[in-house]
Amino acid sequence: MTVLDIIDPIHDFIRVYETELKIIDSPIFQRLRRIRQLSGAHLTYPSAQHSRFEHSLGVMHVAGQAASALKENGFLDSDQVADIRLAALLHDIGHGPFSHLFEEVLQEKKKISHEDLGRRLILDSEIGDILSKSGFNKKLIVKLAFGDPRYRFVNEIISGSLSADMMDYLQRDGYFTGAEHAKIDHKRIIQSLDVYKSRLALDRSALYSFESMILSRYQMFKAVYFHKTVRSAEVMMLEAIRLADKSVGFTSLDLDEYVKLTDEFVVSKILSLPENNENLRRAKKLAQDYQNRRLFKCVFERIMTQKDLKSKEPLRDKIANKSKINKNDVFVDTSTTSSLPLTPSKEKTKSITLIAKDSGKSIAKEIPFSKIPVVASMAESMNILRVYTTAQYRKKVEIAANSILGGQK
Amino acid sequence: MTVLDIIDPIHDFIRVYETELKIIDSPIFQRLRRIRQLSGAHLTYPSAQHSRFEHSLGVMHVAGQAASALKENGFLDSDQVADIRLAALLHDIGHGPFSHLFEEVLQEKKKISHEDLGRRLILDSEIGDILSKSGFNKKLIVKLAFGDPRYRFVNEIISGSLSADMMDYLQRDGYFTGAEHAKIDHKRIIQSLDVYKSRLALDRSALYSFESMILSRYQMFKAVYFHKTVRSAEVMMLEAIRLADKSVGFTSLDLDEYVKLTDEFVVSKILSLPENNENLRRAKKLAQDYQNRRLFKCVFERIMTQKDLKSKEPLRDKIANKSKINKNDVFVDTSTTSSLPLTPSKEKTKSITLIAKDSGKSIAKEIPFSKIPVVASMAESMNILRVYTTAQYRKKVEIAANSILGGQK
Amino acid sequence: MTVLDIIDPIHDFIRVYETELKIIDSPIFQRLRRIRQLSGAHLTYPSAQHSRFEHSLGVMHVAGQAASALKENGFLDSDQVADIRLAALLHDIGHGPFSHLFEEVLQEKKKISHEDLGRRLILDSEIGDILSKSGFNKKLIVKLAFGDPRYRFVNEIISGSLSADMMDYLQRDGYFTGAEHAKIDHKRIIQSLDVYKSRLALDRSALYSFESMILSRYQMFKAVYFHKTVRSAEVMMLEAIRLADKSVGFTSLDLDEYVKLTDEFVVSKILSLPENNENLRRAKKLAQDYQNRRLFKCVFERIMTQKDLKSKEPLRDKIANKSKINKNDVFVDTSTTSSLPLTPSKEKTKSITLIAKDSGKSIAKEIPFSKIPVVASMAESMNILRVYTTAQYRKKVEIAANSILGGQK
Amino acid sequence: MTVLDIIDPIHDFIRVYETELKIIDSPIFQRLRRIRQLSGAHLTYPSAQHSRFEHSLGVMHVAGQAASALKENGFLDSDQVADIRLAALLHDIGHGPFSHLFEEVLQEKKKISHEDLGRRLILDSEIGDILSKSGFNKKLIVKLAFGDPRYRFVNEIISGSLSADMMDYLQRDGYFTGAEHAKIDHKRIIQSLDVYKSRLALDRSALYSFESMILSRYQMFKAVYFHKTVRSAEVMMLEAIRLADKSVGFTSLDLDEYVKLTDEFVVSKILSLPENNENLRRAKKLAQDYQNRRLFKCVFERIMTQKDLKSKEPLRDKIANKSKINKNDVFVDTSTTSSLPLTPSKEKTKSITLIAKDSGKSIAKEIPFSKIPVVASMAESMNILRVYTTAQYRKKVEIAANSILGGQK
Repeated sequence: MTVLDIIDPIHDFIRVYETELKIIDSPIFQRLRRIRQLSGAHLTYPSAQHSRFEHSLGVMHVAGQAASALKENGFLDSDQVADIRLAALLHDIGHGPFSHLFEEVLQEKKKISHEDLGRRLILDSEIGDILSKSGFNKKLIVKLAFGDPRYRFVNEIISGSLSADMMDYLQRDGYFTGAEHAKIDHKRIIQSLDVYKSRLALDRSALYSFESMILSRYQMFKAVYFHKTVRSAEVMMLEAIRLADKSVGFTSLDLDEYVKLTDEFVVSKILSLPENNENLRRAKKLAQDYQNRRLFKCVFERIMTQKDLKSKEPLRDKIANKSKINKNDVFVDTSTTSSLPLTPSKEKTKSITLIAKDSGKSIAKEIPFSKIPVVASMAESMNILRVYTTAQYRKKVEIAANSILGGQK
Repeated sequence: MTVLDIIDPIHDFIRVYETELKIIDSPIFQRLRRIRQLSGAHLTYPSAQHSRFEHSLGVMHVAGQAASALKENGFLDSDQVADIRLAALLHDIGHGPFSHLFEEVLQEKKKISHEDLGRRLILDSEIGDILSKSGFNKKLIVKLAFGDPRYRFVNEIISGSLSADMMDYLQRDGYFTGAEHAKIDHKRIIQSLDVYKSRLALDRSALYSFESMILSRYQMFKAVYFHKTVRSAEVMMLEAIRLADKSVGFTSLDLDEYVKLTDEFVVSKILSLPENNENLRRAKKLAQDYQNRRLFKCVFERIMTQKDLKSKEPLRDKIANKSKINKNDVFVDTSTTSSLPLTPSKEKTKSITLIAKDSGKSIAKEIPFSKIPVVASMAESMNILRVYTTAQYRKKVEIAANSILGGQK
Repeated sequence: MTVLDIIDPIHDFIRVYETELKIIDSPIFQRLRRIRQLSGAHLTYPSAQHSRFEHSLGVMHVAGQAASALKENGFLDSDQVADIRLAALLHDIGHGPFSHLFEEVLQEKKKISHEDLGRRLILDSEIGDILSKSGFNKKLIVKLAFGDPRYRFVNEIISGSLSADMMDYLQRDGYFTGAEHAKIDHKRIIQSLDVYKSRLALDRSALYSFESMILSRYQMFKAVYFHKTVRSAEVMMLEAIRLADKSVGFTSLDLDEYVKLTDEFVVSKILSLPENNENLRRAKKLAQDYQNRRLFKCVFERIMTQKDLKSKEPLRDKIANKSKINKNDVFVDTSTTSSLPLTPSKEKTKSITLIAKDSGKSIAKEIPFSKIPVVASMAESMNILRVYTTAQYRKKVEIAANSILGGQK
Repeated sequence: MTVLDIIDPIHDFIRVYETELKIIDSPIFQRLRRIRQLSGAHLTYPSAQHSRFEHSLGVMHVAGQAASALKENGFLDSDQVADIRLAALLHDIGHGPFSHLFEEVLQEKKKISHEDLGRRLILDSEIGDILSKSGFNKKLIVKLAFGDPRYRFVNEIISGSLSADMMDYLQRDGYFTGAEHAKIDHKRIIQSLDVYKSRLALDRSALYSFESMILSRYQMFKAVYFHKTVRSAEVMMLEAIRLADKSVGFTSLDLDEYVKLTDEFVVSKILSLPENNENLRRAKKLAQDYQNRRLFKCVFERIMTQKDLKSKEPLRDKIANKSKINKNDVFVDTSTTSSLPLTPSKEKTKSITLIAKDSGKSIAKEIPFSKIPVVASMAESMNILRVYTTAQYRKKVEIAANSILGGQK
C-alpha cells in the first residue's frame, strides 16, 4: 500500500510505504535532517546543505529499484524487496553530527563505527519496535544493512561498487555542490544488474556507465570530499569536538543523548561552553572561526603512496618545533581512501563480473579491474598529506613543513 | 579584479570581486547560511535546505548579468554595474530566522520589515564600513537595494516582475525543492532587457519566456510557498516565536543580538527555555513538534477574494467556541499574495513595456497585463484561508470550521 | 518478451517487443525516418531534423506507460496494453512527405487525411499481415489508433489533451528545436491518470503539470509551428508540391508509390523535372529556393478571430491587383489551430475531470476549462493571417496588403 | 554588428555576424544541412539525424568563446577572434556525403582529404568571394582552419584535444544520439584556456573536466562511432559508393558536382541506376538494404594492437575461400583511431600544459599524459577488426573467420 510520494530533485518521486513512513516520522530519523551529508563542504560549495535525511530516502529508492530489477530476474521476492528497502533507509541511521568527522572521534575514543551505532539504534530504539510491530525481523534488517556473509549480493545492493548508496550520493552530492563531476547513469546500471555466484554482476552493455561512475567517484573525492578547503573546515571542527568532548561528553554513547547531537547543536553547544580551561577556549575559538568561515590555510600538500604515510603526531611535533609555533596551531591531515569503492565487508574490490548476452546465451566473465584500463588507472589509493595552520603563521609553518617533508610539492 | 569563482548549481560559477568577498566573509553575511530560504518547506520538500546565503550570491550574479546587458545598450556604466551587484548581494541581509516568518512577528510588534533592518545593517554595521573603505557610497547602495524613485529601473533589476531576485529564487527554489514548476529561461530574459521611460522593458521576442516565468511563480506559490503542509509547519513556528518572544526578546532589535538569530538557534533557544509559564510550555511543545515533524492538520481550506478575508482573531474565537476546543489549539492562517509580482515600491504591476525591433527600428509599446491572456489569467490575488489544529482535535475543529465558514470546501 | 532497447534522448530507453520490432523493421515504417517531424522548421531551428520515426517510437513508449498506469488501477489488462502500444506506434504511419503539408494537398485534392491513409496502410499493407500473423486484430488496432466511440479513453491515450502523442511531440520538438518552451512533466501526468465515466481523468495533484503542458503547447505553436519564417518555408513547399502534382502524380494514392515519398525524395523529384511548362518552372524555382533557404518574406501579419478569416484566394487576387504583382508571387497563409488540443473525434475539449483523494475517498469533479484561469486564457483559437512574397516585391506587396487589410498590424 | 541569433539546443543561442551569415546563406554551406554528422548512426541511434550544418555553427560558437577568453588574457585581438570564428565555421565545409565515408573513398581514389577539398572550396568558390569582399583574407582563413605551423595555438582552438570541434561534436553527438556518454563541461574548459610557448594550455583547476572529456571521447568511440551496428551500416554504404563510383563519377572532384552530393542524393542516385552490370546491381542492393535497415551481421570482432592489423583484402579472400562464400558477401572492417585526439598536424598528442596559479604567480608545467592516470589509461590506439556478412551466410562466415583469426573473440 502506497502511503506517500515524496518529491526529490534527484529521483523525481520517492514512493514511501507504511512501515517506512513510521520510521521516517520517528524523531531519531527526523534528526538526520540536521546532519549535513557533507559536513563542512558547504563552506566551499555553498549549496551543499543537503542532509543524511534526503540521502537515506534516496538510497531506499535506488535500492528498491535494484531489488525490483533482480526480482524480475527471479533472484528476489517481494518480501525481500521490502526488507532491502528498509535496510537501505536505515543504512546511515547511526551517523552522528558532521557524519564522518564525529565517527572519526568515536573510532579514536571508543573504537566504534557509525555502523555499530546503527545496529544499536535499530535493535534497541523505537525503530526496532516499529519494525517488529509491523512484522519485520529487525535482526535481519541489521544484517542486510551492515553486512553478513550470507546475504552477499543484498549487502552489495546497499554498499560497494554497484551500490544504491554510491549511486545516490554521487548524484546527490554532484547536484547539490554543483560540482558536476558526478554524471551517473544509474538507471542503466540498475537495469543491467544481475547476480552471479551470489555476487552482483553487470550486463556488459553497462560497462561504460560503470567506468564513468567510477571516474565520477574518483573526481568527487579529489574535487569535493578531499578538497583542501573542505578539509580545512573539517580539520577545525574535528579538533573542536575532540577538545570539547571531555567537558561535554559528546561520545558518551548514551543513545538518548546521542540522538540529540546534530551539526548546529554541536556548534552551539561548543560556543556556549565556559572558557575555564585552555581546551575549551581553543574549542570555542575553532567553532567560532568555523562558523564565520575563517578557515585554516593549507601550507603543504602531497599525494602519497600508502607507505609514505607517517603517523601524524610526530610530524606535527616536528613541524611545530622547527617553526617555533605552538603545536596547537599546526595541523596535519591525511585524507585516505581507496580509489575504488570497498566491498560491504570493507575489502578492496578487485573485479567485476560482466554478463554478455549473445544469441540468447548468457556468459558470465569475471573481469579484474586491472583489465579495464580506465578503472585500473584509478586503482591506487588516494592519500593526501596536508599541513594546515592559521593565517598568521602561514609563512613560518610553510617553510618548516617544506624543509621537513621535502619541498617537491 | 576577479577574486574568486564560487561554484553554484544554478549559475555554474558566480564570480566574486574584492569588496563583495569582504562583505560575504563578514559574520553578518555568513549567518545567512543558517537561515533557510524557505523556512519550513524542507519538512514537505526534504531537499529544500538551501539558504539565503546562496540566494543572495545568485541575485548578485543575475543582477550583474542584467546590468551588463543594459551597459551594453548604453544605459549604465561599469561603476553602476558594481553598485547594482552590491545592492543585489545585500537585498536580503536584513532577513532574520525563518525569513518571512520572523518578519511577520517584527511587523506585528515593531512595524518594521526586513528591508528596514537591511537598511540599518548596511548603514550601521561593519558592512557599511567595508563599503565605505572600498570607496562605495553606502547610502546609494541602500537606495538601489531597497527602492528610491530616482533609481527606478535599477530598483526593478533587484525586485519586481523582471527582477534578478525573482529569476534567482524561482529557479533555485524549483531546483532545491524538486518541484520543477520553475522553468525560467532567465538568460533569454536578461538578454532581452531594455529601458524605456526609465523603467525596465523587454524585447518582444522574450514575451513567451516572461509568460512562462509568471506562470512558474504562480505555480510555485500554489505548490510550494502556500502548500498546506508547508504553511502548517510555518504556522507552528510563527506561534512558537510569538509565545517565546516576551521571555527571550527575539524582537529586541539590538543589531548585535539580531545577527545571532538563525533558524536552528531559535529552535534550540526555545527548546532550552524553562517551562515556568503556559506560554513557554506551549512554545516548547510547538518547537518540539516542529522539529520532529508532528505538524498541525489542515481541516478547512478556501480560496478567497480579498473582501472575504475576515480578520483572523474573531474567527479563531468562534471556531474554538463552537468546537469547545481551547483557542490555543485552533489556528487560522491566511496566505495572501499578489499573483503578479509587485513593483519595488510594493504596488501592483499592471503592464509590461515590449520593444519590437522591425527593420532596424525599435518601437516600444506598453502592454497592459489584461491584454496578455496568460498573464491576465493570473491577475487576481491568491488568498487562501485555512484552519489548522492538532491531530487529536481534527474532527471537532473540522466540523466547527465548516459549520461557521460554510461547508463548500 | 523483450526484443530490444532503443536509446532515445527523450525517454532514455524505448523497450520494443517482438511484433513491434517486426513492424518497425518494415520498409513502410522505416520510411518515417525520412519524413521530418516538423517539415520546414529546420530552416529556422537548424537542429529540428528529427523525424516521424523517433516520434512514433516515443508515442508508443508514453502510451505504454499510460496504459500500464491504468492497468495498475484495474482499467486495462496486459493484452490491451499491447494493443495500445501498437496503435500508438502506428498513429502516424499514414503521414506523407512534409507531414501536414502533404496532408493539406491530399485534403484539397482527395478529401483524405493522414488518418485515412493510416487506416489503409494498416489494413492493406504488410503491416496488417505482420499484425495478423502475430495474433493481433488489425481492425481493432485501427480503431484504437484513429478513434472509435467504443474505445473512448483508449483513444484519448493516443490523441487529445492528455495524450501520449502530445506528451511526446511537445518534449521532442522542444528538445530538437532548442526552443525550450516545452517543459512537460509527463511522468507526473502519466502517474496521475485515471478513468472516469469512460474518459481519461487526472489526479488533482497533477493539475499544475497539466496547466504547464497546455501553456507549452500554446507557446510551441506561436514560437515554432506557426513561426513566420517556419511558415514561409512551408508555404513555399506546399506551393511547389501543388504545382508539380499534375505532372508527377504525388497524390495518386497508389500505396506502393505513396510509401516512396519522403521529404528529400519530393524535393529531388521536383528539382529533376523538365521545365516544359510554367507550373513546373515555378515548382522547380520554389524547391530550389527552399533548398537554399531563400525564403519568402512576410509583409503582413495579424492574429484574427475565426470570423475575420476570409477565404484566401480572393484576398490573394486583391493584393496582386493592388500591388500590380503577378498573383503567383503573392501568398496568403492562414495558420489556424485550436489553442487547446482537440478530442480524438476532433471536437473542442471543454473540460477535464479531476480526481481528488481525501482521507482515502476519491471524488471526481468535471472542471470546465473556463474555471481554470490559465487554461481558460488560451481557449480562443489561434488564427494567424499572413501575406508573403519574394524579397524583390517586398515593399509593393507590403503596401498593398496593408492598404487592403488595414494597417493596424 | 549582430545580425542574428540562431537557437541551438547545445549552446542556447548562436550569435551570427554579417559575413558569417552571408557564408551560411550560400548554397554550398546550406548543403551541409543534408549531410548527417554521423553518417549511418541514426540506424542504430534513431535520433542522430543532426547534420554538419548545426555542428559547423556550434564549432564557430565555441571557437569564438575560446578566442574571446584568450583575447581577455591578451593573446588575441578582435580581428583575430573574427578570423577564428570564420575558420571554425568553415572547418568542415569540404565534407561530402556521409562525411568520413566519402572521404575514405576519396582518399583511396584521389589521395585527398576533406581538408583538401575545404581549402579548394574556400579559395575557389563563392565562399572565397564573400570573404574577400568583406575584407577577410581567405588564404589566412584556410591556414587557421586547416593548419599552419605559424598559427599553432589558433589551429588548436579548431582541432585537437582542447578544440572547439571536439567540444561541440562530443556534446552534440551525445545529445542527439541520447548516448549520454558525452558529459563535457566545455564552459569550464573554455574559461580555463591559456597559451604557453605558443600552444594552448589549461588552468590546473580544469584538469578534471579535461579528464572527463577525454573519457567521453573514448566512450563515444566505443559506444557510437565504432558501434558494431553503426559500422555495419557504414560498411554497406561505403561499398555501395565504391561500386557505383565508376558509373556515376561521384569522386570526379568537379566542385560544382561535388556540392550537389548529399546523403539522400547519393542513396537516391544509386537506387535509380540501371542494373546493367554486376557492380551496379550490388550497389543498388546495398543501398536498398541500407535504406530499409537490413544490415550486415557482425560475425567476428577483436580489439587489436596496431601491429596485429593485417591488410584487409587478403583476409577477405581467405575468409571467402575458407567459407566458400563469394568474396562480395564478406566484409572486413578495421576501425582505427587514436584514443587520444590528434594535434592539428595529425600527430599524437602526448602532453598537456597546465598552469597553476598560486599566490598570484603562474607556473606552467607540461604534464605528459603518461602522468595523468585516467588519460594514460586511454593512450593506446583503438583498433577494432570486424568481419561482416549478410544474414544468410552468418554461420558459415563466422566459422571461417574464427578458424582463421583464432576463436578467442
